Amino acid sequence: MAMEVELKEMLDEIQSLKQSLPDSSKSSIDKLQLYVKRLTDLVKSVPVRRPKLKDMSAEVVDSNPYSRLMALQRMGIVENYERIREYSVAIVGIGGVGSVAAEMLTRCGIGRLLLYDYDKVELANMNRLFFRPEQAGMTKTDAAVQTLQDINPDVVLESYTLNITTVQGFETFMSSLGNKTFRPEKEGSGVDLVLSCVDNYEARMVVNQACNELNQTWMESGVSEDAVSGHIQLLIPGETACFACAPPLVVASGVDERTLKREGVCAASLPTTMGVVAGLLVQNTLKYLLKFGHVSPYLGYNSLKDYFPTMEMRPNPQCSNAACLDRQKEYLLVKPARDAAKAKMEAEALLVAEGPLHADNEWNISIVDDSEIDVKDVSSSDTLPEGLTRELPIADEFSRLPASGPSDMSMDDLEELRKQLEALNAD
Amino acid sequence: MAMEVELKEMLDEIQSLKQSLPDSSKSSIDKLQLYVKRLTDLVKSVPVRRPKLKDMSAEVVDSNPYSRLMALQRMGIVENYERIREYSVAIVGIGGVGSVAAEMLTRCGIGRLLLYDYDKVELANMNRLFFRPEQAGMTKTDAAVQTLQDINPDVVLESYTLNITTVQGFETFMSSLGNKTFRPEKEGSGVDLVLSCVDNYEARMVVNQACNELNQTWMESGVSEDAVSGHIQLLIPGETACFACAPPLVVASGVDERTLKREGVCAASLPTTMGVVAGLLVQNTLKYLLKFGHVSPYLGYNSLKDYFPTMEMRPNPQCSNAACLDRQKEYLLVKPARDAAKAKMEAEALLVAEGPLHADNEWNISIVDDSEIDVKDVSSSDTLPEGLTRELPIADEFSRLPASGPSDMSMDDLEELRKQLEALNAD
Repeated sequence: MAMEVELKEMLDEIQSLKQSLPDSSKSSIDKLQLYVKRLTDLVKSVPVRRPKLKDMSAEVVDSNPYSRLMALQRMGIVENYERIREYSVAIVGIGGVGSVAAEMLTRCGIGRLLLYDYDKVELANMNRLFFRPEQAGMTKTDAAVQTLQDINPDVVLESYTLNITTVQGFETFMSSLGNKTFRPEKEGSGVDLVLSCVDNYEARMVVNQACNELNQTWMESGVSEDAVSGHIQLLIPGETACFACAPPLVVASGVDERTLKREGVCAASLPTTMGVVAGLLVQNTLKYLLKFGHVSPYLGYNSLKDYFPTMEMRPNPQCSNAACLDRQKEYLLVKPARDAAKAKMEAEALLVAEGPLHADNEWNISIVDDSEIDVKDVSSSDTLPEGLTRELPIADEFSRLPASGPSDMSMDDLEELRKQLEALNAD
Repeated sequence: MAMEVELKEMLDEIQSLKQSLPDSSKSSIDKLQLYVKRLTDLVKSVPVRRPKLKDMSAEVVDSNPYSRLMALQRMGIVENYERIREYSVAIVGIGGVGSVAAEMLTRCGIGRLLLYDYDKVELANMNRLFFRPEQAGMTKTDAAVQTLQDINPDVVLESYTLNITTVQGFETFMSSLGNKTFRPEKEGSGVDLVLSCVDNYEARMVVNQACNELNQTWMESGVSEDAVSGHIQLLIPGETACFACAPPLVVASGVDERTLKREGVCAASLPTTMGVVAGLLVQNTLKYLLKFGHVSPYLGYNSLKDYFPTMEMRPNPQCSNAACLDRQKEYLLVKPARDAAKAKMEAEALLVAEGPLHADNEWNISIVDDSEIDVKDVSSSDTLPEGLTRELPIADEFSRLPASGPSDMSMDDLEELRKQLEALNAD
């Protein structure tokens, strides 16, 4: 816009000059005016942002950026896609995974995105998707906002250029998660989900601390330093293991890039692995927010074998994190009521499912019978997923606890927890 | 650049005007000169592309766009990463999957990319990664080249704005795949791999025809219309099933978008599913080209269950595609020599593996023992992967043939093929 203003002022200047000059100089002035006009046209050909859209339309026209998303309703996948506009998602770490996750959520039309990073874009990041070479030197948050605003002006973007592992950074992190002005009627914190896309152990522990304190559901993600494997994990305070619940499980990607750089060594990374992990992470996010499909508690990606391990981890009653223990106690108190409500919902869903799911199957889509597919990918208790390695002997004891599904939580009462504790201490 | 030229000419014009004018008008002329100078500065602040890099450096500095990729060598994943610069990959269909695949390969520093599409960018495509709203109206090939050139000027980009399903388009497609000026010493066609990222059955059959005729290895990809599942598949003419080998297996995503639009209906799509499929496709491509890990013959993605079916399909000796039958005959002739060479290589690899793989484990990476993980994800003969549905009774017979692994190809001689043929005809 700066150029358009300059050009307009310049045209005025030429106009006033023209009136004061002899006719002999007029041809030269005409030429100048022509130059300014051509420049103005060139400036105008630089694109402008599309206007904000008040509603998500399902109309099938080329100009509708939401037609392919609203089609999820017609397909019977999502009941109410437009609800996505009510949700706030915080993404911590706008690197190889976080930036792509942010772009996916932006293109999906998420209501509000909160972005946290302290780092700058470097040419060394160009082997991953999202950032462009001309953004080198900008903060990752600024560069991300620049790109995301252009892609979808409907998304409310908040960016925080800070390090959550500092005292000041953590305070801002906590207060921003608590801010409820976007949807004042929302219960709990101001966001619906926190996505951890950081590249080191310390930052993961800080996200874990914040989410345990706020009773905030979050998803963790990571990619190994050899670039060929990764994982995503769902963490519900009190209900699933928190990041501190399983201290012997050390994430291999927990290496601080700053330390590495100093030694002239760096971790490998690939746009493929990071793109897949970001895709799985945001897919799990969409399933969680829009309530469709199965939300994976843990999903690994071993790209060398194209193997995708899954597992579930229950909270550790001996967790070193005090907030986690508080959440565990609260969860045990509300669990009976929750289970009853869930059982009722499942029974109702079953009744509905007995009728025809899609009366008008205009797409002629045949679904492969689920019973034919063996989905039991859940790793045995002896198997650890990608990137995880046992370090303390207690790990074997902890992981040997039955990994039962949510519908089969025989362990989840205080009596059982006490027994479990005793068994652990007996060793 | 157009602006800079205009501004330079304008400055000259003002300079000559200044000399012919009385002193009284000079202040106005000075003002004009200042405007032009400020505009020139504004134009210069628009980013310029980084220079081409002659070699891929492994040096760990922020300004090196290849440091994280060359680190794959240090990590022991890839033997010679820089070989990627010798390879040419053709991508047919620059939509939700193809455009992201192109960006990934560009960021990986692929030698040469050939892009094929006839369609234009629309705002309705903004729910997928890659294209930006300001590119609406451009051809997908032009928009892709614009973006990819800026990301990595080292990649040789060739774009073909054509429909491969037309006679003229198919001819250009074939001749461009055959062009060997990029690497004249290369055997076979001019490209190392073709990636099919199209959205309809007809175009897939055309890619299949071209690759069978050229004896060209290719990978197929697809996403279902309900946006929640997808797949990738490796096709080696004569060695694996071609796209026409299994006519009863109809790909659910084989619907022409143009037909759909006319009816005011469109397929659903998600940036997540398409990003995951593109990531799996390019990961398989990197494994195939740079010779690491296991190249998947087929990998499905069912996002509702996070289930990833795999399978292998052998060529159908009754395939309707004449070129496929020719390739099958050729393959059976060279197979004994190939198997012997492969067995020798595997024996040598085994000898090497007995020594320490990484003497200096500077990363302290522990690998989970493979024997603990059950990788047998290969679907049973009764199970079809995502998006595939049986239509003709012969399908059951065909898919019931033993799906043996590559090391166990008891079927692969003419005698066995004859038996198989008889069994099929006996029905």
